[in-house]
Amino acid sequence: MENFNFYSPTEFVFGKERENECGKYVKKYGGTKVLIHYGGGSAVKSGLLDRVKASLDSENIPYVLLGGVKPNPRDTLIYEGIELCRKENVDFILSVGGGSCIDSSKGIACGALYDGDFWDFYDKKASVQKALPIGTVLTIAAAGSEGSGASVVTKEDGMLKRDTSSDLLRPRFSVLNPQLTCTLPAYQTACGATDIMAHVFERYFTNTKEVEVTDRLCEAILLTMVKETPRVIADPDNYEARANIMWAGTVAHNDIIGVGRSQDWNSHGIEHELSGLYDCAHGAGLAVVMPAWMEFVYKHDVMRFAQMATRVFGCPMNFENPEDTALKGIYAFRRFLHDIGMPINFEELGAKAEDIPVLIEKFGIGDGQTWGFVRLSAKDIEEILNNAVKAKL
Amino acid sequence: MENFNFYSPTEFVFGKERENECGKYVKKYGGTKVLIHYGGGSAVKSGLLDRVKASLDSENIPYVLLGGVKPNPRDTLIYEGIELCRKENVDFILSVGGGSCIDSSKGIACGALYDGDFWDFYDKKASVQKALPIGTVLTIAAAGSEGSGASVVTKEDGMLKRDTSSDLLRPRFSVLNPQLTCTLPAYQTACGATDIMAHVFERYFTNTKEVEVTDRLCEAILLTMVKETPRVIADPDNYEARANIMWAGTVAHNDIIGVGRSQDWNSHGIEHELSGLYDCAHGAGLAVVMPAWMEFVYKHDVMRFAQMATRVFGCPMNFENPEDTALKGIYAFRRFLHDIGMPINFEELGAKAEDIPVLIEKFGIGDGQTWGFVRLSAKDIEEILNNAVKAKL
Repeated sequence: MENFNFYSPTEFVFGKERENECGKYVKKYGGTKVLIHYGGGSAVKSGLLDRVKASLDSENIPYVLLGGVKPNPRDTLIYEGIELCRKENVDFILSVGGGSCIDSSKGIACGALYDGDFWDFYDKKASVQKALPIGTVLTIAAAGSEGSGASVVTKEDGMLKRDTSSDLLRPRFSVLNPQLTCTLPAYQTACGATDIMAHVFERYFTNTKEVEVTDRLCEAILLTMVKETPRVIADPDNYEARANIMWAGTVAHNDIIGVGRSQDWNSHGIEHELSGLYDCAHGAGLAVVMPAWMEFVYKHDVMRFAQMATRVFGCPMNFENPEDTALKGIYAFRRFLHDIGMPINFEELGAKAEDIPVLIEKFGIGDGQTWGFVRLSAKDIEEILNNAVKAKL
Repeated sequence: MENFNFYSPTEFVFGKERENECGKYVKKYGGTKVLIHYGGGSAVKSGLLDRVKASLDSENIPYVLLGGVKPNPRDTLIYEGIELCRKENVDFILSVGGGSCIDSSKGIACGALYDGDFWDFYDKKASVQKALPIGTVLTIAAAGSEGSGASVVTKEDGMLKRDTSSDLLRPRFSVLNPQLTCTLPAYQTACGATDIMAHVFERYFTNTKEVEVTDRLCEAILLTMVKETPRVIADPDNYEARANIMWAGTVAHNDIIGVGRSQDWNSHGIEHELSGLYDCAHGAGLAVVMPAWMEFVYKHDVMRFAQMATRVFGCPMNFENPEDTALKGIYAFRRFLHDIGMPINFEELGAKAEDIPVLIEKFGIGDGQTWGFVRLSAKDIEEILNNAVKAKL
């Protein structure tokens, strides 16, 4: 196991109707003037935004509003949020929405206290030194942003998708009410589930040896998703299944299951170009990229893929031919994604094979290689994307 | 899933030689005058205490010393520590040792800022309102106290073992260096492993339905312990196995795997009377009590025990007779404990059947019942202890 630090100071406030307490938690964590940042109409129509406002009102905490966060959140709205925070002397950001909304809030949080352009943090020209405190009311189990210090934002000019990370961007508290996710369309639920599983797989495929405890913890989350995702697709109001998925999504990405081991984030990196170019859902892009990536890299460690196949998908181990087991595991994962309604190839995603050179160009690897489980060149990424074009069951 | 809050703000500093950084972390978390609290000779002899002192010296942080913590830490030393902290204006406690040392430090931490008798917190007459900040350098994977707000202390007058818990007692940081555990005798290593598994089982046996994610996370820790414990017993210097156990011990007890479900702490409660009376190791007492408790309660939920048997110990499911599978799982657990060198009955522990009335009297349940997976009366506890007397493989 590699040396590591693990620090997850977020207070998770989990369960039915807990959003009604968010005023109390804003107060606990020192907020006196709040920016409520949210997305589109669903938080308004469902009455959630009104409940959040009422909760702040009951604690006499004033607030300003900024809605309009889109999936793949844009820099343009973040600039607007930064201006608003400065003008209104906001000292706490309350993010009401999914991962995009939280990531947008993180951009505002670090930008509001920075003299330069907040994009510097995403462009890796600067590291976050201070940020406004954030609280969240999560409306979809997916990104894990409610428990992480990471944020992914899209620069509208050129649709460049970039990320930053800092412990200062970890939310002070996150309200997780599974009820709020019951009204999600099946497609969005499935996209969220795929993102959660991808967060685990990016940690699971490691070159660090003998990391049984984090292997087993990763498998625990994957097994949960394999069991619970079809249940909520079939029965959207199933609170218990929603609750299991919601806690799985947080544990998947606060890194308690990924510490002390090398990780691989190449599927995420490749997918970011797809959702950057086509503005598709991140989870849908991952459903297309991740199995295609697996097919490209599995020979690097056949036994690890065989372990995944047997422990997560219940494939019988073929002791005479472990490669067969490894491939059966990848097939089982793609089959699972298809069964929950995810696209599994370019056509189903609405992507085009002829765009592959553009996607690689935007990825920006040049003659270099990525880091990860298997280091990838531009040519390797091309092969993975070609796998994704022709993927079928 | 039940509503819950989860809050684990401890910074975990994990890996080789990380104790040399503890001065840096004391400074980060605001300590300017430190009490180094430690146990017996091993921290001195191994040079660990000198390295900790050197680390504080390098940050110019002054300190006072208080050693002498015994297993099942006593109130008498805590009173001494409280006096010392007040006299020396200590504002940070650095605990160098195992669970007993950390629990003793927590007693000092809450007592030093309290006008009354610190025992009030353990006697449930008062709840902790403030406490000195604590850091730890852990020397045995076992109690999980390095990541929890709980503390168990023994009142020397009458050898009463009682506990308290507060988020204010969660350490600010905990240094986890698996190297420090390589010199532990096999018996202590096995006692620690048993304690870790017991912390999981106390959460695993629940009356809350459909909690797949925490079920799977519990099983992940148990599977890790089943694999790694025999490895370190056979090969004490195996760093990777030690590292897996150390992280498992922390995750087992910071409650991320136990949230949202009813828990059962009756085996711990019964064991506390054993180690209170005989001053035996807590883990050894648990090895005797917990399987005996399982034999008494398994009929309450045969399928949960069958799940444990198949998922954790790899027993084949007997679909015609799940009770047979459940019993095979309990047998497998006791066999495992025996194989790692733990006592499995009263005689092997050095306990006496004729003391059972005394143990029950001290447990203090009277005509009432405990809370938990199965509520226990004094008569039930007597039966469990009788199971423990006659237990064999």
